[in-house]
Amino acid sequence: MKINLLLYGGMTALDIVGPYEVLSRLPGAEVLFVAEKVGPVRADTGVLSLVADAALDEALAADLVVVPGGRTPPLVPGVLHEWLRGADAVSTWTASVCVGSLVLGAAGLLRGRRATSHWLTLDRLPFYGAVPVAERVVIDGKYATGAGVSAGIDMALELVGRVAGPEVAQSIQLGIEYDPRPPFSAGSPGAAPLPIVALLRRNRDMIVRLG
Amino acid sequence: MKINLLLYGGMTALDIVGPYEVLSRLPGAEVLFVAEKVGPVRADTGVLSLVADAALDEALAADLVVVPGGRTPPLVPGVLHEWLRGADAVSTWTASVCVGSLVLGAAGLLRGRRATSHWLTLDRLPFYGAVPVAERVVIDGKYATGAGVSAGIDMALELVGRVAGPEVAQSIQLGIEYDPRPPFSAGSPGAAPLPIVALLRRNRDMIVRLG
Repeated sequence: MKINLLLYGGMTALDIVGPYEVLSRLPGAEVLFVAEKVGPVRADTGVLSLVADAALDEALAADLVVVPGGRTPPLVPGVLHEWLRGADAVSTWTASVCVGSLVLGAAGLLRGRRATSHWLTLDRLPFYGAVPVAERVVIDGKYATGAGVSAGIDMALELVGRVAGPEVAQSIQLGIEYDPRPPFSAGSPGAAPLPIVALLRRNRDMIVRLG
Repeated sequence: MKINLLLYGGMTALDIVGPYEVLSRLPGAEVLFVAEKVGPVRADTGVLSLVADAALDEALAADLVVVPGGRTPPLVPGVLHEWLRGADAVSTWTASVCVGSLVLGAAGLLRGRRATSHWLTLDRLPFYGAVPVAERVVIDGKYATGAGVSAGIDMALELVGRVAGPEVAQSIQLGIEYDPRPPFSAGSPGAAPLPIVALLRRNRDMIVRLG
């Protein structure tokens, strides 16, 4: 199974490293990090770079393509959207994490599809003709979308379960000891204290620049 | 707060990217990826490289040092252990994820300390004089250790809560929408189906090379 993981400047690193850590353990998986150019790609914090091993025009067709979110997601038409449409035309699965779903939407791939996104940007999905669903992982046909940042781990395990069966997914989950125990209960707007939800809503433009 | 995140060839990427994604959002944090040499460092799968921006001998003293695990953790005495002892001598917190605790142990830093590790390697901690504790996150004095791979997210949130207060930790948790929903219940040896636990035990040497 060929898997292309997309990188772009301003991406959120965990959005793509979460799925990578799960998917790279799938027996027979050939995982490739792709970006507009080969080489280091800076994440949104400015602190970390991940290295792309293939340019978009060198990346072979893949069975699964994963698009991360970021603070400055590529929502303006361009070469990246063209590549995504081409990749999607031959993929078995097209997936996103966080505001990566807005990138898929902006590329015209989610029209009429149920999808999720970061909780702060769910309301943007209808701009692209998608139907927002406030769930951790949403699968509609070949489109798998995950909620904010850390949801990529759950999404990837769900995909592995569908592609290779539950035993493989469970082996990978145990291998990465994914037995989450958040020390606080604040991971969703329904669970977090109201003042903290309000704070993040006020600062939405600092968290994601939607242009 | 200065934070040095260690990279080494053969590390597990999520071990360090999980804490990075949390800690880099701590207001005032200065996060630096350090390795023996500046430049790309290959993770254990051979697929992903993360970029170190400072060499060990250039990295300034930090308040927090985080050591990831990997399939081939550096357990043999050498320059990395010397650096760790120096970093630990001036840190407020010294932390690890997964078999990173064995690296701390091999550097002589966990003698008499309660610590955790990947569930497959907990039994190695006594070799280094540490007391194994099968918990997700263990804090003993200034030493914070997390269990396997994905536990670094929980560990980092716990540290942020202690350093900056629960509100800051909750804001970060909501920002990365850390509301985990694993699609399977197999994240610990107590929860996973017995044949899967047995499979991973048989393949331990493939998962971690302990030399």
